[in-house]
Amino acid sequence: MSGIMRIGRLELRVMDLEESVKYYTNIIGLQETGRDGDRVYLKAWDEYDHHSIILQKSDSAGMDHMAFKVKDVHELEKLEFKIEQFGCKLTRIADKSRLAEGQAIRFEIPTGHMVELYTEIEQVGTGTGIINPHPWPDGLKGIAPHRLDHALLTGDDLESVTRFFTEVLDFHQTEKIVTVDGEVMLGSFLAATNKAHDIAFVKGPDAKFHHAGFYVDNWYEVLKAADILTKNEVPVEVTPTRHGITRGQTVYFFDPSGNRNEAFASGYVSYSDFPTITWTEDKIGTGIFYHRREMLESFSKALT
Amino acid sequence: MSGIMRIGRLELRVMDLEESVKYYTNIIGLQETGRDGDRVYLKAWDEYDHHSIILQKSDSAGMDHMAFKVKDVHELEKLEFKIEQFGCKLTRIADKSRLAEGQAIRFEIPTGHMVELYTEIEQVGTGTGIINPHPWPDGLKGIAPHRLDHALLTGDDLESVTRFFTEVLDFHQTEKIVTVDGEVMLGSFLAATNKAHDIAFVKGPDAKFHHAGFYVDNWYEVLKAADILTKNEVPVEVTPTRHGITRGQTVYFFDPSGNRNEAFASGYVSYSDFPTITWTEDKIGTGIFYHRREMLESFSKALT
Amino acid sequence: MSGIMRIGRLELRVMDLEESVKYYTNIIGLQETGRDGDRVYLKAWDEYDHHSIILQKSDSAGMDHMAFKVKDVHELEKLEFKIEQFGCKLTRIADKSRLAEGQAIRFEIPTGHMVELYTEIEQVGTGTGIINPHPWPDGLKGIAPHRLDHALLTGDDLESVTRFFTEVLDFHQTEKIVTVDGEVMLGSFLAATNKAHDIAFVKGPDAKFHHAGFYVDNWYEVLKAADILTKNEVPVEVTPTRHGITRGQTVYFFDPSGNRNEAFASGYVSYSDFPTITWTEDKIGTGIFYHRREMLESFSKALT
Amino acid sequence: MSGIMRIGRLELRVMDLEESVKYYTNIIGLQETGRDGDRVYLKAWDEYDHHSIILQKSDSAGMDHMAFKVKDVHELEKLEFKIEQFGCKLTRIADKSRLAEGQAIRFEIPTGHMVELYTEIEQVGTGTGIINPHPWPDGLKGIAPHRLDHALLTGDDLESVTRFFTEVLDFHQTEKIVTVDGEVMLGSFLAATNKAHDIAFVKGPDAKFHHAGFYVDNWYEVLKAADILTKNEVPVEVTPTRHGITRGQTVYFFDPSGNRNEAFASGYVSYSDFPTITWTEDKIGTGIFYHRREMLESFSKALT
Repeated sequence: MSGIMRIGRLELRVMDLEESVKYYTNIIGLQETGRDGDRVYLKAWDEYDHHSIILQKSDSAGMDHMAFKVKDVHELEKLEFKIEQFGCKLTRIADKSRLAEGQAIRFEIPTGHMVELYTEIEQVGTGTGIINPHPWPDGLKGIAPHRLDHALLTGDDLESVTRFFTEVLDFHQTEKIVTVDGEVMLGSFLAATNKAHDIAFVKGPDAKFHHAGFYVDNWYEVLKAADILTKNEVPVEVTPTRHGITRGQTVYFFDPSGNRNEAFASGYVSYSDFPTITWTEDKIGTGIFYHRREMLESFSKALT
Repeated sequence: MSGIMRIGRLELRVMDLEESVKYYTNIIGLQETGRDGDRVYLKAWDEYDHHSIILQKSDSAGMDHMAFKVKDVHELEKLEFKIEQFGCKLTRIADKSRLAEGQAIRFEIPTGHMVELYTEIEQVGTGTGIINPHPWPDGLKGIAPHRLDHALLTGDDLESVTRFFTEVLDFHQTEKIVTVDGEVMLGSFLAATNKAHDIAFVKGPDAKFHHAGFYVDNWYEVLKAADILTKNEVPVEVTPTRHGITRGQTVYFFDPSGNRNEAFASGYVSYSDFPTITWTEDKIGTGIFYHRREMLESFSKALT
Repeated sequence: MSGIMRIGRLELRVMDLEESVKYYTNIIGLQETGRDGDRVYLKAWDEYDHHSIILQKSDSAGMDHMAFKVKDVHELEKLEFKIEQFGCKLTRIADKSRLAEGQAIRFEIPTGHMVELYTEIEQVGTGTGIINPHPWPDGLKGIAPHRLDHALLTGDDLESVTRFFTEVLDFHQTEKIVTVDGEVMLGSFLAATNKAHDIAFVKGPDAKFHHAGFYVDNWYEVLKAADILTKNEVPVEVTPTRHGITRGQTVYFFDPSGNRNEAFASGYVSYSDFPTITWTEDKIGTGIFYHRREMLESFSKALT
Repeated sequence: MSGIMRIGRLELRVMDLEESVKYYTNIIGLQETGRDGDRVYLKAWDEYDHHSIILQKSDSAGMDHMAFKVKDVHELEKLEFKIEQFGCKLTRIADKSRLAEGQAIRFEIPTGHMVELYTEIEQVGTGTGIINPHPWPDGLKGIAPHRLDHALLTGDDLESVTRFFTEVLDFHQTEKIVTVDGEVMLGSFLAATNKAHDIAFVKGPDAKFHHAGFYVDNWYEVLKAADILTKNEVPVEVTPTRHGITRGQTVYFFDPSGNRNEAFASGYVSYSDFPTITWTEDKIGTGIFYHRREMLESFSKALT
């Protein structure tokens, strides 16, 4: 019963804006919906809102902020109060600071990432329309995910950030990774919805971005994604496999600035009364790469 | 932000209890979790709760009731108040009236079906466990769906029942079928969750049951389901196809008493701020059977 | 050890040539490789030869002829001798009678269909090339089959036509349908290769065309094909299902002239020492439509 | 037009016979069809012949021999003559030397491997039968491939072994890997059938075994295979991916003696007039692991 409806957008820092737009539109297959100075706004074909990805020209890669859409102003106010009570410093983003968006609140979570909450964004509609729609539109390009699915971030104090998301924002923790003695949390997977995760954290340096996950429909779409990446010489880090955590099917790769992307399929439906699945550190390899069964050094190290 | 967490269970009336148990365990592949007089309790392998299907020995087929799990007692009380205000007559089901269940409230919705709300049910866990789980358990039988997904019922006054589910129970209407002039609602698809539907109604006689949908992971699992049905000589009504409505992939068939079942895959993720997709009556064939593009007489007529 | 290498081409009669070309290029997704008076030549992206389908403008639909590519001139001469010995009247098609083709021999088989054998045809190459090729080319349109797979024809004397293909052309019979008493052959599936069939016959009027089968890679491609057909309002006769015969996955539909097409996936690998699989007439429904388990009237009646 | 019909069997040396039988029956899912001293005979469910894998108890891993089934005695005699002319030393294996087999000829190919040709082997039939068969049998275990598909061997002189297979045994070369200057052959993929390969060679030490490939139907079956391997803690070398060469989908793993196995799906249909696809050494990574795009050291080094 979180007042948070969904992951709404990521603003990513990219170094060559035009090359990045080309990548996100031709290879990922998002649609450009607007430009505003050094920012380009993009959406997936199956999303109603004006954008879910903002590319911001910058001299370093990474995530500017992650934002969640809240159900209404009333819920937003309640959350604002709880966030301040938790001790987060909070600022207001004015209406129209960004294209097609209303006002937002912005705050730093215990892992040092900037998060925003908002309720207003222009709905531009999906590629299939809402009157007698076909299941998919013509003219799709590239990987063509349905939507932005989740983000994974790194940070040091996963206990606190988990407490923040569960107690303040009413997420439920679907899975966690812990040391074998159970003392320290090394990974935390959190959902405000019935998805396997909307946001996740793994132990690592604060304020860093691990990846943005885009949803594709099935295991054959993961294969198609991987084929497209090779055809376009996009660096692939993890070839098609299954996650133990979330059970999802996946391929990982990098945008031109080195921000990691994922095409993610399947994964279970979660409910807030489901027990949190626990992975112990000795099985972390299987949890993350179910077939490989061991960690990949770059997967912990390559952060933006 | 519905206080309702999910579709919890269906109690189905079946005529030959042992034959039905054999069908639901060997062909659908549910697990028997208990017996209680003329009732047999079943769950899918990926469900935590004690049961999602109850088979009740009877001299006619159909649905005794459908139940939703509510987040907590506080929400249940709020819903109880709103249900009575709406004008539904409400009774209480005492704690332990059924195996592994706490108390429930029971009421008749505007289409004449009995619905229950409850918060307590014993969790028996899934086939994979919650510590370093594998993605699927060994020893699965038959179609082996992950979970009960939704039910479709028939009734006359779809406007009222939609109002009941959206205004009283806080569902959102994901899709609807209307007459070409837009005056009369012929179908209504409703979700309390981020699924494409948890319950749906099509125009027809009151208090009748159309089908129970079980979730399978993908289009190949729909094929496997259809193969299993032919191998076991189970009557298949609709061979593998896609729905326009929900975009899901499907096969329809009948249990030994004539209750319709569905193996359903895919379908989109819905949010409460998504506009309701509208199908006009002239496109109802495409909406329901996307490839066939016309209705099937039995699909409207065979009800239990 | 047949001297016949593969099904090489079908020449189909169509009534509106331009509409047909549009259909075969945009919806089936073949490539136009040449024109020659009232004939248009087409190939699938994964075929090396100049064409596999010739559309011939005509005032009635149907198949002009079916042709097989023979390994070399020596084999062609041996086959020519055997064909004449069998009693078929044989004519020669001169070199360059059709675009990009060498000479051919043409003869009538016992079911009244015209068949040709040839060895020379220009190779124009596939969409992926032969140096470090990607698995699939960019820019595919429509259903985009890999290749022409097989044709099914109707005729009265299936015993004789089977004898012709097995004894004269060295095909092996992979499957057959027979009356329950085993006396009469109602269907005959024949391969010169390791495929489940290159040509097939079902009992019916002589000299008629039932369908052309195009190969797609898998069950998801069959779904995509069916989706494309609905999006383009192409008449679909049989929605996605599995055949008992060949085990293949299939969808059937009609070109603008009423010639039946199939998108066909999977099916086993056959060898000449495999026993012929037998379907008895009482199981013909299951043999043809494995999930439906009964014949469809149009499937026997709609012939061109 | 090869007189060779198919890859018939591999005899593999294994060190712990009982553990190996357990692995090949429970995890690969072959059926044990006989025992004969230190040999165990196995077949896949979709194969007609008595066996396709023989496990031979030994003190080292590797391949004893690979055998091809020839169409008839006449063809066998012709091949015997050509093999001797090529200069291979040839011995005869007497009738009944192995269970259910007739006589064979045995010879050493230019890479030092022992190969046999035979025509007689008892047919025991498939899991589905040949009268009105279902598409797959009940009770399948493990990965449950349809059949043995191919073997890959290593050797020094790939030019000679290719000449042997194409000129003497009438295989066609579907693909090859060459040095960038085109001077030296580093890989050779050869088919006697319409498959993408029946046998293949990569540059390496003579007389060594690289892997046995088992055919599964599709990309989801490759995922299932990989899941089963992790569930059973079988060492996986290459997680699910696509080959550039053959376009097939694959997962590689090891039997208890260290013999490499593959579950292989898809791949194109080949014909003897298709040009040989050429991979240049600089693209060998992409040719072998299409998504990873670079070689894996163990893949060249781990040989038995």
